[in-house]
Amino acid sequence: DYKSLDTIVIGVVGGDGIGPAITGQAQRILEFLLNDEVNKGKVEFRVIEGCTIEKRAEVGKAIPDDVLEELKKCHVILKGPTTTPRKGDPWPNVESANVAMRKELDLFANVRPVKVPELGIDWTFFRENTEDSYALGSQGVNVSEDLAIDFKVITSQGTQRIAEAAFDYAKKNGKKKVTVVTKANVVKTTDGKFLDVCKEVSKNYPEVEMDDWYIDIMTAKLIDEKRRTQFEVFVLPNLYGDILTDEAAEFQGGVGTAGSANIGKQYSMFEAIHGSAPRMVDEGRDIYADPSSVIRAGAMLLNHIGYIEEADKLYKALEICSQTEKKLVMTGRDTGATSAAYANYIMETIDKLG
Amino acid sequence: DYKSLDTIVIGVVGGDGIGPAITGQAQRILEFLLNDEVNKGKVEFRVIEGCTIEKRAEVGKAIPDDVLEELKKCHVILKGPTTTPRKGDPWPNVESANVAMRKELDLFANVRPVKVPELGIDWTFFRENTEDSYALGSQGVNVSEDLAIDFKVITSQGTQRIAEAAFDYAKKNGKKKVTVVTKANVVKTTDGKFLDVCKEVSKNYPEVEMDDWYIDIMTAKLIDEKRRTQFEVFVLPNLYGDILTDEAAEFQGGVGTAGSANIGKQYSMFEAIHGSAPRMVDEGRDIYADPSSVIRAGAMLLNHIGYIEEADKLYKALEICSQTEKKLVMTGRDTGATSAAYANYIMETIDKLG
Ligand SMILES: CC(C)[C@H](C(=O)O)[C@@H](O)C(=O)O
Ligand SMILES: CC(C)[C@H](C(=O)O)[C@@H](O)C(=O)O
Repeated sequence: DYKSLDTIVIGVVGGDGIGPAITGQAQRILEFLLNDEVNKGKVEFRVIEGCTIEKRAEVGKAIPDDVLEELKKCHVILKGPTTTPRKGDPWPNVESANVAMRKELDLFANVRPVKVPELGIDWTFFRENTEDSYALGSQGVNVSEDLAIDFKVITSQGTQRIAEAAFDYAKKNGKKKVTVVTKANVVKTTDGKFLDVCKEVSKNYPEVEMDDWYIDIMTAKLIDEKRRTQFEVFVLPNLYGDILTDEAAEFQGGVGTAGSANIGKQYSMFEAIHGSAPRMVDEGRDIYADPSSVIRAGAMLLNHIGYIEEADKLYKALEICSQTEKKLVMTGRDTGATSAAYANYIMETIDKLG
Repeated sequence: DYKSLDTIVIGVVGGDGIGPAITGQAQRILEFLLNDEVNKGKVEFRVIEGCTIEKRAEVGKAIPDDVLEELKKCHVILKGPTTTPRKGDPWPNVESANVAMRKELDLFANVRPVKVPELGIDWTFFRENTEDSYALGSQGVNVSEDLAIDFKVITSQGTQRIAEAAFDYAKKNGKKKVTVVTKANVVKTTDGKFLDVCKEVSKNYPEVEMDDWYIDIMTAKLIDEKRRTQFEVFVLPNLYGDILTDEAAEFQGGVGTAGSANIGKQYSMFEAIHGSAPRMVDEGRDIYADPSSVIRAGAMLLNHIGYIEEADKLYKALEICSQTEKKLVMTGRDTGATSAAYANYIMETIDKLG
């Protein structure tokens, strides 16, 4: 329970590209909503510098040691998108900063809600966040010049805790069914284990049904208007979770609008699910970037630390503003509307909500 | 060139579940279209028995030796869906028959077209068909009771031939762009190699553009009405190809309507992309199964062996019939319309087309 802490420390990592611009706006809104708490010293915002791609490349680590140390002093983290190095980039082959953060802080549950009331969609994805192809993602083997091997890793314990998180959530929220997604007909050993462990866990939740699907046909079912509304809670290995949540977010307006909660036993991190769009920065357009994904991540953070009322206000404001002013921001180049203008509009809307 | 052969031997593998019922109907239609050729001895249909799940389980092999020998005597194969064994099934842990057939006959290119003219969709997927998580799919390692590992394998040669197939197709068909789909930001060694080799191959096709996307965001782009029509030809590693083509097929009416070509240097196999629906058989409903996927696979087969005119007629008939009678078949339980009735209707339609 965060509220029993003397001070809840919220770390803010701006990230790369458009990250600092949009994360800054999200922070402004959270500070606005928690103004009294900040003044009382109950909540502290702490901007953590030095998690940029240049710094990461310089020290050759996905997260510089001093940054990691600072992160571990926070209770929750709000994070902007970070640039993932790729082959041919001018920096060493370091791992993605968000992938590293998930592993270093053991944020094993990536929880991604997708709600589209007008389509009858109300999904919550529990994506395992530390194993699968991500565990050894940058440690594959070049057996020879022409033969490359990567590894997929699944453990019973890793699967058990994400399955329990999904079933707990379903039970607490009166959901009827948890859907397990694998490719156990082909990737037999690891996905087979994932499915087996989920089945075991499900036995402890007799009030919740379990069904299972293969990831290929699942991507089709999300599009099927008759079938998709029958799904509620999903639990998936890391990579299928990565894939299916991007597809799902599209129904809600795209990855640019979706926030993501990375939850562990000790730490939690809330982030945008899209990339850092360095091209926008190069073209001087970062001040026009749509900040709604990080703002939504901020709402999830508020909810997580127990500021439910504030979270609800922010969700409501996001809903109202997405209908109107967001279009202004999205076309900011032409209209001059900036991310800051959008954040202002959100805060005005919250004020009006009272 | 198949037409230079004395006799083109078309092997027919019924498969499991609804497979024999729907494959039988597809065969009837092909025999109808190639009636003269069969009478002249130019084309021979050869039904290959014994590739059932019971037989496969009995001999403990994905494809029984005698079946494989028979398959290798055919020039092309028409295949119904086969049941994939899963853990807990009453047969040994044998590999999926279609996966084994792709590897044994070295059918490296899985070509899946998806066309939806009214949505402006005209996609052709080139899915690599022998490597990736499928290469050692049933040979993962249980390091301990709680730790499972699977392997992803990518070779330069394997990637080169599928990339060349995609770029050749694009060039010959006046397509502007080939889109490579990987997750090279995380699965760095294998997907990185896949992307690198595709880039190398693309240099030999200056008239064709190449772009690349990550599989997660690609599943979202297929849904984005503004963006999806900009894609034409895709090339992907096996598993992402499996996933993305099921999603894509949904726009065309679902996997039940999509055919799939598995092409190698020596052999080719054409199949439905959906499963064997054993439940329908258990309930005595297999005679009502929708055969359009295998029929479409049959049209692809005709096209492949050079019977272009016959293929075109069949495609046209499929298009006409999907608007009308198919609904009858899909709801056959109530209306009494069977797969055979649907096949009859297709043949009548072909007759009318003249
Ligand atoms: C940027 C990338 C490494 C990351 C992932 O693959 O997890 C992203 O796609 C996400 O979903 O958060
Ligand atoms: C049945 C299964 C093994 C197969 C695959 O994964 O390739 C199927 O999904 C397909 O796409 O043909």
